[in-house]
Amino acid sequence: MLINQFKKGFRLACVQLAVTADKAANITRATKFIAAAAKNGAKIVVLPECFNSPYGTQYFKDYSEKIPGETTTTLAQAAKENNVHIIGGSIPEECGGKLYNTLTAFNPQGEMIAKHRKVHLFDIDVPGKIRFQESEVLAPGNNLTMCDTPYCKIGLGICYDIRFAEMARVYANSGCKLLVYPGAFNMTTGPAHWELLARARAVDSQLYVCSVSPARDETATYTAWGHTLISNPWGALMGEAKEKEEIVYADIDLNYLDEVRDAIPVTKQRREDVYTMSKAL
Amino acid sequence: MLINQFKKGFRLACVQLAVTADKAANITRATKFIAAAAKNGAKIVVLPECFNSPYGTQYFKDYSEKIPGETTTTLAQAAKENNVHIIGGSIPEECGGKLYNTLTAFNPQGEMIAKHRKVHLFDIDVPGKIRFQESEVLAPGNNLTMCDTPYCKIGLGICYDIRFAEMARVYANSGCKLLVYPGAFNMTTGPAHWELLARARAVDSQLYVCSVSPARDETATYTAWGHTLISNPWGALMGEAKEKEEIVYADIDLNYLDEVRDAIPVTKQRREDVYTMSKAL
Repeated sequence: MLINQFKKGFRLACVQLAVTADKAANITRATKFIAAAAKNGAKIVVLPECFNSPYGTQYFKDYSEKIPGETTTTLAQAAKENNVHIIGGSIPEECGGKLYNTLTAFNPQGEMIAKHRKVHLFDIDVPGKIRFQESEVLAPGNNLTMCDTPYCKIGLGICYDIRFAEMARVYANSGCKLLVYPGAFNMTTGPAHWELLARARAVDSQLYVCSVSPARDETATYTAWGHTLISNPWGALMGEAKEKEEIVYADIDLNYLDEVRDAIPVTKQRREDVYTMSKAL
Repeated sequence: MLINQFKKGFRLACVQLAVTADKAANITRATKFIAAAAKNGAKIVVLPECFNSPYGTQYFKDYSEKIPGETTTTLAQAAKENNVHIIGGSIPEECGGKLYNTLTAFNPQGEMIAKHRKVHLFDIDVPGKIRFQESEVLAPGNNLTMCDTPYCKIGLGICYDIRFAEMARVYANSGCKLLVYPGAFNMTTGPAHWELLARARAVDSQLYVCSVSPARDETATYTAWGHTLISNPWGALMGEAKEKEEIVYADIDLNYLDEVRDAIPVTKQRREDVYTMSKAL
């Protein structure tokens, strides 16, 4: 297997799931893809944003559940059965009367190793193109979230979180070598920014980045861009889906990450002494 | 003129100068392009990095001068004669026995309105591809630099400075609506990162960005990538050169910048309360 070529490496699988209005079917379908990815050597499997529910403010309440609950219990079991790490995209979470857009991650023992509530809610209004206001029904998370794996530390964000470079910087400073963003950009922001943002986060912090979308459904009220992708620390795409359902794989090479950081040592070259200027203005 | 379509706008000209080993000829050639750009309606004209000298650690001392000196005096005069703002790329500066890679900017009255010494020196070593160590001969600047114009506040960086998102963030927080990066990426980092970094800075901070290179000279010891470009706040290129000498123009529309910021209000949505996590780790 390719994975054995690397001293420090692992196979990453990103599932561009075709999400439907049938919650149970979505969950079952996700577990099948997790099993398939594990069979193909993946050690970490990532699902898309809102993988058990259509994406839309009108759906979140009906599809929401507590954590732990039906969906996350199934993910925990799938992680154990397939001996993989799962970064379980996100689901609408209900907690204390509030709704959140929440990511959960599991280790191969079936233990939940991270829970990230989307920090930056997706509130945009591009006239004539797309208006979406998550904040009408969702509450924001108030924490950044990382998880440890035997391969590397991973920084977690959901979709709109990727627009905030500060968040990626904190993760990089904390030792993350992979950033995972389940996301569902649309037909306006997708072609304009989806790839750019992932590659920018990768190059600025010299780490691996994956952005994992649901498959495109032209009949849905919100049409996802698709194009699940994985960027290496040089900003080169290692794999990219088109719009249909598929798994994107990449063999993550942490030696290569070190090489990039040695070649262009921006981390050491930062000038924190001069970035304080804004405070004086 | 197109410029009149905009309530808040101005024409920007970026000169992808063919720099040679003849210092006097470089300066003269630059002033001719400044005059041509002004004639075409440009209000701000930008020159490339190291526009009066070949780019290379072996050249900086011989081509260096004090500020004010021959080159900057000529730029001041050109600004006055052509009634334009000039962001005069950069030149090797000698000061107190040290050498710097320094940008100067002038208003139409011929007054120097900014002096920026490259903060992040270009020290990279991509094995088998490119090794360059500015720090072998140059000293770094220790300040960020902005300049005011009647059109907008401008944030200034030189080449490698563009890799540091923190710097662009400070400029954006301080009210800059245009970032100007004279630069000379090479045949390795150019195709990989030149466009990506400019568009990323533009989208992350929702402002205009231009990166201005010398023309490509395959016979030089350091071959510049060229591809001078201007990105709008949506991350779309408004103009891009290929490798040869030319002027790239764009009509900067500050109303459009406001529209982008209204559509995707990331500045208001930042969560400075959660970005402090790294300090606790």
